[in-house]
Amino acid sequence: MENTLFENELKVVNLGLASFADSIADVGGSALQIDWQPPAFGDAEVGKHLALTMNNPLIDDANQLAFARYQAAAPRLVGVGTAGEDLPEMSERMILHAGPPIEWDRMCGPMKGAILGAILFEGWASNIEDAQVLAGSGEIAFEPCHHHNSVGPMAGVISPSMPVWIVHNPEVGNASFCNLNEGLGKALRFGANGPEVLERLHWMKDVLGPVLRDAVGELGYLDLKPIMAQALHMGDEVHNRNVAASALLLKVLAPALLDTGRPLQEINSVLRFIISNDHFFLNLSMAACKSMLDAAAGVPNSSMVVAMARNGVEFGVRLSGAAGAWFTTPAPLVDGLFFPGYTSEDAAPDLGDSSITETAGVGGFAMATSPAIVQFVGGTPSDAQEYTREMTHITLGRNAGFTLPALNFTGTPAGIDCRSVVDTGIAPIINTGIAHKEAGVGQIGAGITRAPLSCFNQAVTALAENLFENSGD
Amino acid sequence: MENTLFENELKVVNLGLASFADSIADVGGSALQIDWQPPAFGDAEVGKHLALTMNNPLIDDANQLAFARYQAAAPRLVGVGTAGEDLPEMSERMILHAGPPIEWDRMCGPMKGAILGAILFEGWASNIEDAQVLAGSGEIAFEPCHHHNSVGPMAGVISPSMPVWIVHNPEVGNASFCNLNEGLGKALRFGANGPEVLERLHWMKDVLGPVLRDAVGELGYLDLKPIMAQALHMGDEVHNRNVAASALLLKVLAPALLDTGRPLQEINSVLRFIISNDHFFLNLSMAACKSMLDAAAGVPNSSMVVAMARNGVEFGVRLSGAAGAWFTTPAPLVDGLFFPGYTSEDAAPDLGDSSITETAGVGGFAMATSPAIVQFVGGTPSDAQEYTREMTHITLGRNAGFTLPALNFTGTPAGIDCRSVVDTGIAPIINTGIAHKEAGVGQIGAGITRAPLSCFNQAVTALAENLFENSGD
Repeated sequence: MENTLFENELKVVNLGLASFADSIADVGGSALQIDWQPPAFGDAEVGKHLALTMNNPLIDDANQLAFARYQAAAPRLVGVGTAGEDLPEMSERMILHAGPPIEWDRMCGPMKGAILGAILFEGWASNIEDAQVLAGSGEIAFEPCHHHNSVGPMAGVISPSMPVWIVHNPEVGNASFCNLNEGLGKALRFGANGPEVLERLHWMKDVLGPVLRDAVGELGYLDLKPIMAQALHMGDEVHNRNVAASALLLKVLAPALLDTGRPLQEINSVLRFIISNDHFFLNLSMAACKSMLDAAAGVPNSSMVVAMARNGVEFGVRLSGAAGAWFTTPAPLVDGLFFPGYTSEDAAPDLGDSSITETAGVGGFAMATSPAIVQFVGGTPSDAQEYTREMTHITLGRNAGFTLPALNFTGTPAGIDCRSVVDTGIAPIINTGIAHKEAGVGQIGAGITRAPLSCFNQAVTALAENLFENSGD
Repeated sequence: MENTLFENELKVVNLGLASFADSIADVGGSALQIDWQPPAFGDAEVGKHLALTMNNPLIDDANQLAFARYQAAAPRLVGVGTAGEDLPEMSERMILHAGPPIEWDRMCGPMKGAILGAILFEGWASNIEDAQVLAGSGEIAFEPCHHHNSVGPMAGVISPSMPVWIVHNPEVGNASFCNLNEGLGKALRFGANGPEVLERLHWMKDVLGPVLRDAVGELGYLDLKPIMAQALHMGDEVHNRNVAASALLLKVLAPALLDTGRPLQEINSVLRFIISNDHFFLNLSMAACKSMLDAAAGVPNSSMVVAMARNGVEFGVRLSGAAGAWFTTPAPLVDGLFFPGYTSEDAAPDLGDSSITETAGVGGFAMATSPAIVQFVGGTPSDAQEYTREMTHITLGRNAGFTLPALNFTGTPAGIDCRSVVDTGIAPIINTGIAHKEAGVGQIGAGITRAPLSCFNQAVTALAENLFENSGD
């Protein structure tokens, strides 16, 4: 038989290590190479923990509950408040930032710039030098937005006087918050803190916030999921593309603004501010996603991811079943399209809480519905569909409320299972803006990145150890 | 050899008449049936005319010019006027209607209902009975909108006092017009003429028209192609789905409305009227398409279709190279989704000038970009892509200004060549609303139809005869 085998042309399929296929090619044969890696990337220790968690009914049941709470959440805009007054456990001299916890000294350029701007905006210092001294003095507490039921895009800086969207989820009773979007160009979230940035922040505090508060008051409340669902049918993935959602929001807000009885000039300026910014809805999308995921958080033993967030230095992941813990690793660089004059060398590592959208099944997970976004983040429309399909391998289900026309109206894949990420090696996809690494330059591009697998290894290990502790009780 | 042939299993491909394949199946064999028909559907006379026109450099050159004018057109909203004052050759006692010319007695139910409503609205009669007598008396001239550089959806009724959008194309200098969209429910365009319809028409004349005129005055002008292009990236095909385009229009109009200085109550009512109607942009889309196609009209020997329009009884086609002529045939019924309680038996045949959108390469021709529309007109998202691909076989080119993300940003197929329709047997696809056959019931569904091939046979014949006459000079 051996003889006959070698008389025929060899048809070789090689799994895993490419060097076996290479040696066949070297002698003139051909081999089909299939990428494959063992679960847990061959790390025996993580693999052992993964084995403890896979097909574990304790975890499966917990996930079912967590996913059901996520799916049932009905985030609803109920008001516009002020961070210092409305955010839970926000103290007087506290500034919130994006991502997992980080000390002043270790922060990235854009985050430092944004914090200095916030200090000036609050009037705690009158110039940048004094602000810098104050920031490093230990007199100001820096905490993650996520520790205060909040999220913020890019640097994610929220200081006490800033206006915030207030979103309630009546299903569970949880409240979520996000700051208001400043628009494009020089903006605090990219670390800019010049006069025009501070002036805009004051206008947002004095005019935008109060006028929007009155307008939302006229509406009573506004259900956010239907707007997101409709925007997903209009080419938005409600993370990096919010043009439809912002226009749909305008349709609701414009008449309410007229009804506020505010001076026409204020209404006019607010209307124009909203209209000038196709990302205006982003911060509401983020608050809604935070609301849905906070509903799913705190289910013991659940392996569902309830936050992915970046502070520009570290990438962090939180699990429903590991309340309060952050699983962190260095933040990756983003592969993307750069604005003219910039390259990847100018880029800050991945930054911002906006990956809460991917965690909730939209953003990169819903890219199939947003072919036009590839003009912004790179790739082709068929890549966009492939990303969404790929994410079905690491998610607990599909969100029946967020259907994707391009995939024949199936729901978007949602509820990342950290076990599946480790088992398959498929890392969650994230669409994101790219900030300049130095404070104040602003956005220099946009692109696609992946959540680093190391966070999920740690999460699986913690989950397994927790199960062990539980069973040892 | 014959013996060996019949010893093996037969593999049969049958082109054209299915009965040959059927007889193989009857005796237990199998055959792959390929649909095929000879060009001109086997009509020798039409085939002869088609042969005269195919690959004819006179026609090819003319088409190149016509298509270039269509492609270069830059329709621009420049004002809101009044039909009686602004439409060319509109006389005092004239009412315009959709589709090719038709006399009062032969009109369909919705068109008669709309004309009676227009007579009441104009105050030419004080009740329906008197209006009916007047309509049949010959004292009122009925002419197609298309004869007055205009278009109107469904019944397409435009009477002298109605406000109209005014669209200019600076490239050629042509002006186009369309009435304003009344919104959903009972509407004149579906033949409704009750008190609420007339009251709305008066409000449109007294408030909506003048306020919009002032708002457009504040803007100066508004380029329509960029709005349409962006809407095509947001899931609209700008015929039956205009939700994005209407929202984008609102973004431009809302601040301009505030700037008019009109009483806040008027601004508020106009704003709410626009917001309440996701089809508000349709009539602007139609005027823009009319503008682009009128730019291409009147090129001698061009086989490019510059209008497809229906009056509910007949379907009519006009050619660039056959100025003024209508090639007509009975209007088809529309295959679609009916609202609860209605069936195809309740439907009026195909009606309205809105197929000007398909003639201009959007609507059904751009369905690939609008997967969500299949929920309205039927089919699946992949059907939608297939329709667009199919239309590339009967069009002169692709509109570089209207790209389709789902087809990797290729332009929408545009410029129907009547020769290609006859040669391939592929009939132009049209997305459309379905009116009840009786006046005043309103829209009962929406769906997909095809332009009847007979119109294109006639057009090719006329084109060929014209060439013959030209060469006989």
